[in-house]
Amino acid sequence: MFYLIGLGLGDAEDITVKGLEVVRKCDKVLLEGYTSILTVGKEILEEYYGRPLVLADRDLCESAIDEVLIEAKDKEIALLVVGDPLGATTHTDMLLRAKQFGVQTQIIHNASIMNAVSCCGLQLYNFGETVSIPYWTNTWKPDSFFEKIVANFSRNLHTLCLLDIKVKEPTEESLTKKVRQYMDPKFMSVKEAAYQLVQIIEKRNDAGIISKNSKAVGLSRVGATDQRIAVMTLDAMQRCDLGPPLHSLVIPGPNLHPLELDYLAQFE
Amino acid sequence: MFYLIGLGLGDAEDITVKGLEVVRKCDKVLLEGYTSILTVGKEILEEYYGRPLVLADRDLCESAIDEVLIEAKDKEIALLVVGDPLGATTHTDMLLRAKQFGVQTQIIHNASIMNAVSCCGLQLYNFGETVSIPYWTNTWKPDSFFEKIVANFSRNLHTLCLLDIKVKEPTEESLTKKVRQYMDPKFMSVKEAAYQLVQIIEKRNDAGIISKNSKAVGLSRVGATDQRIAVMTLDAMQRCDLGPPLHSLVIPGPNLHPLELDYLAQFE
Repeated sequence: MFYLIGLGLGDAEDITVKGLEVVRKCDKVLLEGYTSILTVGKEILEEYYGRPLVLADRDLCESAIDEVLIEAKDKEIALLVVGDPLGATTHTDMLLRAKQFGVQTQIIHNASIMNAVSCCGLQLYNFGETVSIPYWTNTWKPDSFFEKIVANFSRNLHTLCLLDIKVKEPTEESLTKKVRQYMDPKFMSVKEAAYQLVQIIEKRNDAGIISKNSKAVGLSRVGATDQRIAVMTLDAMQRCDLGPPLHSLVIPGPNLHPLELDYLAQFE
Repeated sequence: MFYLIGLGLGDAEDITVKGLEVVRKCDKVLLEGYTSILTVGKEILEEYYGRPLVLADRDLCESAIDEVLIEAKDKEIALLVVGDPLGATTHTDMLLRAKQFGVQTQIIHNASIMNAVSCCGLQLYNFGETVSIPYWTNTWKPDSFFEKIVANFSRNLHTLCLLDIKVKEPTEESLTKKVRQYMDPKFMSVKEAAYQLVQIIEKRNDAGIISKNSKAVGLSRVGATDQRIAVMTLDAMQRCDLGPPLHSLVIPGPNLHPLELDYLAQFE
């Protein structure tokens, strides 16, 4: 049996009782460590579960997962994923491969940023399509996600912006070398995301419906005890420090429900 | 302290470890019983938690919540909510009222249908605005949600349709009487939802982009061990029995990603 278990968003205790029982009985437990992070690291989780965890990086999850799945034919193996286990395409792909190998699977759901974002008071059913904001480089500055934010905004829908995470990314220089070198992990802050958005707005220079004076909601460490939420203009958000990762950004629709306005006002 | 605790979607063991600890230490625990249900009832939960629960109906949550909140000024009180606690507007309103009374609050998140719907293989970031489909009566047949499905579809986005739940609804006849009488609880099935959608499509008769031959995904008891998923045309979905509640329906966008197609094919 191959289990995909969501860990939720905060710390070790955000796993469900069902999930914890499976973790404790499995023959092997892997921890997916590159699409998201908790506020606690692998060691704290190992202590809490009372068992060692195997760190599963992108290579393992995307290229070497077949071995794990074949092993799961007659062993109990779990992959732990921060948030809900089906937030990323990779995990759906794993379940399909498991089926090809005749391996049984079970999904144990948990909270993800896709629903916990409601902690800022914006109602989930008023959100449109979610977008991802990637880190820009000197030569690569994609902005196609901005059209989606505009499309949501013009239908009076909020946009959840998931911010880029770089974990175990090879350095550009090492790509052509035999020995891979890796960058330090980095996690996009609301400050960096707001900067990139303001750059796009200024470049378009078309007096679009979203301006740098539009409202933005910054969130950090959602679900953790030190969670923070801040509401201000996109312009001001460029200078807003919400502390350690993970961060998320929401661009609310233009006309908010009175209850949404009242709730957001707490964070202004 | 006033806690809002998500129970997740399946059974008693889908609560998080953090949530369970709070339930066990609280002075009083209420169970919200009208916006959603688990596959197990109040008695099973009471046995699992080892403590009695107070059933909180709509009247208590909307009209009489102030008393509970005032009590939470110097007691530990929790309200348990199926799914994630911030899925419904009522609970956001409670948090605002708590603030007015100077009562501290804590939210313990969990999975909700808004993220667990990804179990069908459709990617969460390809979903547009969520809609609710209400039960029609002889005289009231609203269809405004259909425009939202069309707007999502035309942007190639999936629509999650939340299906109506009637729990402790007064009968029409008793509305004018002193003694309220209540209808039996009812939960809209994918079959009933598909019927109403097909009625709307036929009434519009405008060869719209969504027809009764469009693909639909029916889901029941998501997160439970007997969860079911079925993929067929909206027309066929009118005759599809997915067993006991809760049910949800998804209208996928017209052009699916190959991985989404492969995953859905399992349920055809």
